[in-house]
Amino acid sequence: MPIETAMPTERSMPTEPVLIAGEWCSEPNLGSFSATNPKTREAGSLRYPVSGRATLERALEAATLAARELAHTPPEPIARFLELCAEGLEARAEALVALAHTETGLPREPRLGHVELPRTLGQLRQAARAVRTRAWCQPVLDLELDIRSMFAPLEAPVFVLGPNNFPLAFNAVMGGDFAAAIAAQNPVIAKAHPSLPGTTRLLAEIALHALEQAGLPASSLQMVYHVDPELGLELVADPRVGATAFTGSRRAGLALKAAADRAGKPIYLELGSINPVFVLPGAVRERGQEIAQDLFASCSLAAGQFCTNPGLSVVIDGPETKQFLEWLGRHFQSEPSGCLFSAAAAAHLSASVATLIGAGAELVCGGRERTDGGFGFDNTLLLTSGAQFLANRAALQTEAFGAVHLVVVVGELDQMRQVARALEGSLTGSVYSDRRGSDDAAYRELAEALASRVGRLLNDKMPTGVAVSPAMHHGGPYPATGHPGFTSVGLPASIQRFAVRRCYDSVRQHRLPPELENHNPTGCWRSVDGAWTNQGV
Amino acid sequence: MPIETAMPTERSMPTEPVLIAGEWCSEPNLGSFSATNPKTREAGSLRYPVSGRATLERALEAATLAARELAHTPPEPIARFLELCAEGLEARAEALVALAHTETGLPREPRLGHVELPRTLGQLRQAARAVRTRAWCQPVLDLELDIRSMFAPLEAPVFVLGPNNFPLAFNAVMGGDFAAAIAAQNPVIAKAHPSLPGTTRLLAEIALHALEQAGLPASSLQMVYHVDPELGLELVADPRVGATAFTGSRRAGLALKAAADRAGKPIYLELGSINPVFVLPGAVRERGQEIAQDLFASCSLAAGQFCTNPGLSVVIDGPETKQFLEWLGRHFQSEPSGCLFSAAAAAHLSASVATLIGAGAELVCGGRERTDGGFGFDNTLLLTSGAQFLANRAALQTEAFGAVHLVVVVGELDQMRQVARALEGSLTGSVYSDRRGSDDAAYRELAEALASRVGRLLNDKMPTGVAVSPAMHHGGPYPATGHPGFTSVGLPASIQRFAVRRCYDSVRQHRLPPELENHNPTGCWRSVDGAWTNQGV
Repeated sequence: MPIETAMPTERSMPTEPVLIAGEWCSEPNLGSFSATNPKTREAGSLRYPVSGRATLERALEAATLAARELAHTPPEPIARFLELCAEGLEARAEALVALAHTETGLPREPRLGHVELPRTLGQLRQAARAVRTRAWCQPVLDLELDIRSMFAPLEAPVFVLGPNNFPLAFNAVMGGDFAAAIAAQNPVIAKAHPSLPGTTRLLAEIALHALEQAGLPASSLQMVYHVDPELGLELVADPRVGATAFTGSRRAGLALKAAADRAGKPIYLELGSINPVFVLPGAVRERGQEIAQDLFASCSLAAGQFCTNPGLSVVIDGPETKQFLEWLGRHFQSEPSGCLFSAAAAAHLSASVATLIGAGAELVCGGRERTDGGFGFDNTLLLTSGAQFLANRAALQTEAFGAVHLVVVVGELDQMRQVARALEGSLTGSVYSDRRGSDDAAYRELAEALASRVGRLLNDKMPTGVAVSPAMHHGGPYPATGHPGFTSVGLPASIQRFAVRRCYDSVRQHRLPPELENHNPTGCWRSVDGAWTNQGV
Repeated sequence: MPIETAMPTERSMPTEPVLIAGEWCSEPNLGSFSATNPKTREAGSLRYPVSGRATLERALEAATLAARELAHTPPEPIARFLELCAEGLEARAEALVALAHTETGLPREPRLGHVELPRTLGQLRQAARAVRTRAWCQPVLDLELDIRSMFAPLEAPVFVLGPNNFPLAFNAVMGGDFAAAIAAQNPVIAKAHPSLPGTTRLLAEIALHALEQAGLPASSLQMVYHVDPELGLELVADPRVGATAFTGSRRAGLALKAAADRAGKPIYLELGSINPVFVLPGAVRERGQEIAQDLFASCSLAAGQFCTNPGLSVVIDGPETKQFLEWLGRHFQSEPSGCLFSAAAAAHLSASVATLIGAGAELVCGGRERTDGGFGFDNTLLLTSGAQFLANRAALQTEAFGAVHLVVVVGELDQMRQVARALEGSLTGSVYSDRRGSDDAAYRELAEALASRVGRLLNDKMPTGVAVSPAMHHGGPYPATGHPGFTSVGLPASIQRFAVRRCYDSVRQHRLPPELENHNPTGCWRSVDGAWTNQGV
């Protein structure tokens, strides 16, 4: 997910304002850019500024003050704010969908209006619920020793850098990281994805209005459209920043991680991954045609621009597998390819496909950038053998952020397991097996090899759906993310990224946070002397 | 907590064996060292080897195989192993206490025999309990969407580097990190603290016997005495290592962190800190003499060689405070100083005191290395003003790992708050206030400033006691640790450092781990559709 879709150009044009310290402010001329409509390749008429150090300094100062205030705000106005955000989104749904469509080329319906917008609303409302129930605090009480602990706010701003592929649900404003950071009572400094300036600006307007209505500090959200990458590295390491959340490309994410790590600052990365799909022989026999169709649908959803897009599948050679590959190839060849977010996205796909071919993959179909109409790249299917994959495993795991899929055809189950063991960390791993149980022994061996390499293991299901559920884990081993214990989707777990564990040892009862008081005034679930209860003690 | 207490010396002497792949192996001659008795400054007769890359490579290979096996072992043998460790320790208590005493100079009684040994036993048994109850797994079920998640083993070895100051309870073998890593079903590669080779070897012998009795892989524990620091940096970054736990000095810890971070490997640091103690005016009036005595006792416990040793206290100027300081000074001057672990420890204290004085602190008493008898340093009390502290806050927070204490005398409450806000992250922060409530308004203001700077907030209590309680948090903001969300003491939370979050999406019922099956065969506490229950569904 490249962030360089829009680069600074001319220097002296009037630009749209950024949101700093509760005000919409115009920026000095450090450069500006405009959004590009991916379907027409035309630049929009509005110019957005690139922000510099002075602006970020003001944002940090204001956010630091807001952090103290938010940390001592009771839950109700925080929850109300998140709900008001959802209401504000609903009220401006049409304008938002139109803007997001113009800036991403994603279909208005069903994707933006009936999938992503409801998901974003649901996320905000689940976050509000987690605030009210205090579920994210996970209080632990030891009554005998009078020691109590819980998760508490960072008391410092969270820097959120959003991706381009979910203009609403993962937007740095109103997306999942925003909802989680606010639920933990921390202000957000949002860096819009520069391909989404108009969408992000409208979201910030709605959020600012909701802050006023809820009576929260106006500096609880600040937003810039673009900064020099060097400034981003400074910000993640700034002593005043509590934590950073980044969703995007591995290259940009690891550069930010290095800067944050050196400063001892938590950073949570969601970098996308190859998301392998294993199809066991019984499943190929039983419903190969259906699986081929589902696999193509998952690969080509939003032109493949999903972090959970399946980039690799593994099948065992045989006559049914040849038929399966034929069905799969027919989908890739015959169905139209989708619209990409940017020229850079298409160029990256060209480079990825060249790497895969250079590493020994055989091109079945596709492989070329589209030059007619909007930004695009052919649906691309590649093939390789298990032996070739094992011999060249690093290059053959090159992520191609689009509808580019590599099938590894292995000789037998044992080689399939070797392929599983050769995989880098991924967000997901899917295994298809037949319904009668003939694949069960193979499943056991394969799942054992695969489980430690993926954050989410799926059965008979493609990985592209990431439900906002308390049980969801949208995370996984490095390099899919920066730490295998955290998730960026699913509440309340995602909130705990923006919290500290805090302990109260023999602190007098009237000085405790309400979540830790004996009589449990908040009615939250607590682990008391080893048992969970929502009653007082 | 320096690790260089014992350096390699002569090259061709017979050395004690290391524990690799289930065998006690002799090492090639890469150097050797012996332990020093801190009370006599005499070197022991046994020579211990420095291990090289070849040994670590064998350890990693064996541990990687053991990791797979352990991850698929049922809870009962794991729990039984931890209990057998405790039983083995009890059976060898006398020998262990004698060895630990010889290698550390810590008193046999009550410290080693009646405080630290029972703590170590309790920790191992609590870990066994957490294994049986599965409390560390924290399963989350979404029945409607059929998504389930839980914490699961790393399926990779944990590298544990223990400190010198708790020869049993924090030993790389049998200490808190060992118990937590094993409870999460991961093998341990232990690097003994080189000042504790004999103690650690005996602990490893007991553990190896317990592994055999419990029927676990012998490579579940491997142990070396010392490695070149460069090799340590390689090991934390090795792709086969799951995570690292380090307790010790900031310098060594941050070097390891940098190496682990670059490789995307989790590392958990417990680096000690300054642990400020604030005494409010009412408390000084009400019970100044008692607090002065408690403060000195906490400062001088084990010659101050505790990560939670209070290095700094803050009081408001006034006549009662002058009296308080007099009482405190009398303790520091009149009571005997304890034995330090090494010559290096004494040299570090000299350097720290020089830094503090150079930064404007006034020496009240002490300040000199002891040359008679064992390794030692005078009980040392220093004084500075609030203004001086604020002007030179970095240098005046230099940690002195010993009975060296700096009192900051501030002008008024507001300056006390400024001092609190100027503090680096600490493991603990204590506030003393009077019992009648006259300090309550001051407490509120101070606690608000202090809470975000410490992992554990105490009332009317010194920080040196770190109870092994589920509610304990032995952690805190950087640079006291590497991440504010994790604790190295307190089960089950400390176990989650050595776990990954894993999700099962639509995985067939008979393929789920027992913790996630509908009928809940393990009877563990689970969050099901938002409510905690230990029943099946």
